[in-house]
Amino acid sequence: MLSIIRPTLILDEERVRENIERMARKAKHNAIGFRPHFKTHQSAEIGGWFRDYGVKKITVSSFQMACYFAESGWDDITIAFPVNVCELDQMQNLASTVHLNLLVSSSETADILARDIKTDIGIFIEIDTGYKRSGIDINDMASLEKILVRLGKNKHLHFEGFLTHTGQTYLAAGPDQIRSISTETFAQLAKLKEYFHSAYPHAIVSVGDTPGCSVMDNFTGIDEIRPGNFVFYDLMQLQLGACRPEEVAVAMACPVVAVYPERNEIIIYGGAIHFSKEYITLPGKGSIFGMLVYFRNGKFSEPDPDIWISKLSQEHGTVKTVPHQAAHFSVGDILFFIPVHSCLTAHLMRDYQTLSGEIIQTMNS
Amino acid sequence: MLSIIRPTLILDEERVRENIERMARKAKHNAIGFRPHFKTHQSAEIGGWFRDYGVKKITVSSFQMACYFAESGWDDITIAFPVNVCELDQMQNLASTVHLNLLVSSSETADILARDIKTDIGIFIEIDTGYKRSGIDINDMASLEKILVRLGKNKHLHFEGFLTHTGQTYLAAGPDQIRSISTETFAQLAKLKEYFHSAYPHAIVSVGDTPGCSVMDNFTGIDEIRPGNFVFYDLMQLQLGACRPEEVAVAMACPVVAVYPERNEIIIYGGAIHFSKEYITLPGKGSIFGMLVYFRNGKFSEPDPDIWISKLSQEHGTVKTVPHQAAHFSVGDILFFIPVHSCLTAHLMRDYQTLSGEIIQTMNS
Repeated sequence: MLSIIRPTLILDEERVRENIERMARKAKHNAIGFRPHFKTHQSAEIGGWFRDYGVKKITVSSFQMACYFAESGWDDITIAFPVNVCELDQMQNLASTVHLNLLVSSSETADILARDIKTDIGIFIEIDTGYKRSGIDINDMASLEKILVRLGKNKHLHFEGFLTHTGQTYLAAGPDQIRSISTETFAQLAKLKEYFHSAYPHAIVSVGDTPGCSVMDNFTGIDEIRPGNFVFYDLMQLQLGACRPEEVAVAMACPVVAVYPERNEIIIYGGAIHFSKEYITLPGKGSIFGMLVYFRNGKFSEPDPDIWISKLSQEHGTVKTVPHQAAHFSVGDILFFIPVHSCLTAHLMRDYQTLSGEIIQTMNS
Repeated sequence: MLSIIRPTLILDEERVRENIERMARKAKHNAIGFRPHFKTHQSAEIGGWFRDYGVKKITVSSFQMACYFAESGWDDITIAFPVNVCELDQMQNLASTVHLNLLVSSSETADILARDIKTDIGIFIEIDTGYKRSGIDINDMASLEKILVRLGKNKHLHFEGFLTHTGQTYLAAGPDQIRSISTETFAQLAKLKEYFHSAYPHAIVSVGDTPGCSVMDNFTGIDEIRPGNFVFYDLMQLQLGACRPEEVAVAMACPVVAVYPERNEIIIYGGAIHFSKEYITLPGKGSIFGMLVYFRNGKFSEPDPDIWISKLSQEHGTVKTVPHQAAHFSVGDILFFIPVHSCLTAHLMRDYQTLSGEIIQTMNS
């Protein structure tokens, strides 16, 4: 039974397991590796659920997260973030106990690793397929060849392959565009692998974004997927068409602290330090920081389009409703909201309460 | 000496103390109470510094924060958030050991408190002076009188006065407009107090926003100020003209993880889980999530207008520069940025490193 007196992140374990199983099955069906990103849940206990679906290797976004999951028994870890050379000593210590992969996103970093690494470490080269965040441009063969030559000079650096985060799918207008972006990216990456095949016959191609991994069925050209957000999904993924409402596995529970029916607003205890300030925009509504769902028959409903969070202060949330709706709510009611970006909300909330009232801790608890 | 290998929130204790002293002196000069809001720093140790400037009573934004500071010896605490009735039992326990003030922001809440409170508690009525977040409209005398009658029916409820957060100063175009909003608000509140003076001769008026408290010199009509953010200030306050660059007391230190001179961009280790996604906008720059400062002669400089954070992912920050600047930076460099909203950044970072390398913990450490 739920026990809620202040902002609480509620987790539907059944939906989480369904999400994991669906993605694991998809990877198996395509005969590709599944190395889920654990930055979304950041929890050893939830990490353990993945083992039930055959997962043996994981992705994380920081060295500290790698250490946390190594402590709970994960021994094949990719830190999918441009390697922070300030932590190289600590990373080498970790690499002496687990199989650790690091990410090279520039030739400058390749030089530093070639010079300083003295422990066996796997290396992915990060490829930019158009997102323009980090990585080597997929068409910049000169830089790629230069980096590979430099990495090859240090026998401890084991080139594993090419890795990309196709973040441009987050800007897609819907599933069709996500599919066309992904299809094109997969083909480009397959060509890249082919180009280097004779010199690096074991190099793989790893892709990561949840929208692409969710809507694609055919992963030809790809060897490994690393989605993270799919474990919970959220309002952003719903808006993109990357998931269905019954796949969203988390909701924020927030007490009502004031109701102002005359201005169609409800004030909840639940602010920027609970939800994060990530937002989506919808025509006629402006910025949306969360949308109301109902807890019915043991499950969260689809979002109510008439009731949404329109503003967040540090601890306050302002909930906007269409006319005549606010008066249905009272001080002390507990309302549920799908967060916009579940990774950031989970990071801020630091633990979960399952539908049966169990508390699940994270590395931030 | 600073020791930085990953995103770290650096704190200049000298500037913090100057900020506290300046505000305490202003309150003393105006013969008004100073009840600083501790939601910004959330640290028992920094809280202790306030005692050196005569502070004896504090403001917090949650019951948990009240408990944390009560444990470190604060015994006069206002929770400046519409009272969360789901925590009433716990609040009454706390009120049996410290002087606790709660906030009534609607007549519905007044009814619940009048019915349920069995321990002596101070009550402020929250007044909405135009910010339209929470509180009773300052012109709604009928509701105010109704609430006061209801509160009067429970002898444990001690009416302390009227409290407002003049958040509309955050939308001001500059110091002059902050001054005119504050002056008008102070006059309105003085009139309100006068209206209820014969029935409630001891009721006070308490105001809270950092922009107003920073730029105003004359607090006629006001009895207490509750600013919080002024202890650190940030980019938002700088943009508003509520502080000077040499008063900003925190900076985020972030390692450079990639440099892309051809697109005038640097990628830092420092993302939404470090800075928060709060942003300001500047003409020609778009959204800004932080601005570069330099650490020179033991102090942080004013922001460099040519180098700013233009995008944040979970752990990545994309730093934009004017042409030919990015190439001056290298992987492994530590860059410093003023955060947009220091309250949210401090909450996320959970501890501070002082300029002498000491770690200062918070309630979130």
